[in-house]
Amino acid sequence: MRVSELVERTGVPLASIKYYLREGLLMPGTPTSATQSEYGEDHVRRLGLIKALTDVVGLSVAKAGEVLRLVDHPDDALFDTLGRAVAALPPDAPELPDYPRARAALERLGQVYDPRFAATAQLEQALAAAEKAGMPIDERRLGAYGPNVRAIAEADFAAMPSDPAAAVEYAVLGTALYDPVLAALRRLAHQDIAARRLPTVS
Amino acid sequence: MRVSELVERTGVPLASIKYYLREGLLMPGTPTSATQSEYGEDHVRRLGLIKALTDVVGLSVAKAGEVLRLVDHPDDALFDTLGRAVAALPPDAPELPDYPRARAALERLGQVYDPRFAATAQLEQALAAAEKAGMPIDERRLGAYGPNVRAIAEADFAAMPSDPAAAVEYAVLGTALYDPVLAALRRLAHQDIAARRLPTVS
Repeated sequence: MRVSELVERTGVPLASIKYYLREGLLMPGTPTSATQSEYGEDHVRRLGLIKALTDVVGLSVAKAGEVLRLVDHPDDALFDTLGRAVAALPPDAPELPDYPRARAALERLGQVYDPRFAATAQLEQALAAAEKAGMPIDERRLGAYGPNVRAIAEADFAAMPSDPAAAVEYAVLGTALYDPVLAALRRLAHQDIAARRLPTVS
Repeated sequence: MRVSELVERTGVPLASIKYYLREGLLMPGTPTSATQSEYGEDHVRRLGLIKALTDVVGLSVAKAGEVLRLVDHPDDALFDTLGRAVAALPPDAPELPDYPRARAALERLGQVYDPRFAATAQLEQALAAAEKAGMPIDERRLGAYGPNVRAIAEADFAAMPSDPAAAVEYAVLGTALYDPVLAALRRLAHQDIAARRLPTVS
């Protein structure tokens, strides 16, 4: 298909398509003349992924480019590639030499503490914020959160595709898109529990 | 204590304290002369809560004011007050006449569907975003998420103080501050599971 049809099929404006081509996020088409190229279903799919990463997940074009480079060239060790791809997601947390709150929490949960994981800094930041607001996470709450979060993560992992490129895509989108689902479900569960246990005005 | 000491104790600048007094977020002190008032521990505590709601949770002063009015004047039905207070938190989701994706998910989980809950609109928005990115939440994933999120919510509810004002404060801060903890724990659980199941470069 011509680029005009690619615009029509994907809803991505021509200027954005040209920008993604220049930045290497979208692979070039097959030239058919000095001024025209032919595009295929791969391009449609790729633009869908770029839209998901930028519009839906909210990544900058630079961060989306980082993720796409990892999708295109997964490392020999998929574990490292997944870690780097998910690290491109917000929130940004300050890099520190040590994360004492996160370390204590992970030791309590029997999980590896690795300060190189982006999520370790994110956990430290979240635990420090809760503490600052006078609502530190105590042992009992951590004990309730840990195994249930792990069961959620097991379900996520079980559905991960085995193809490395698809796995990277799945890890990034699944991490970013399902967090808000889980947050909304938590609030609705609170309301469901409260409705059963607290008196309501009839 | 004088207002200067209140500034020192809380780290909240004088201009902000005056602004909170004008807007009714902070209750007035006891006048001791035409130009001075005496403040107490209640004021220190209240400024801590205002800081938590604005700086840590990130609410606007107007939204923090809404929450504080509910803390000060909880409704006869605590259930309604809690719902309104938590509804002041982000994310904003468009109000629609019906939320078909959220309705289907809640029916599947055996929970009440109520379009008046802010989190119902938030769930619809999150499910629609996942769908748009080609990663809809299927039955199997919902079945894994539902009971584990509910167990997390049960632990939250069990620790809620019985005093209505404290309960409102707890619900708002606990909802907002523990979401990022849960999100970081989910990523770290993914990494822990991946480290055990995927080959890593030694």
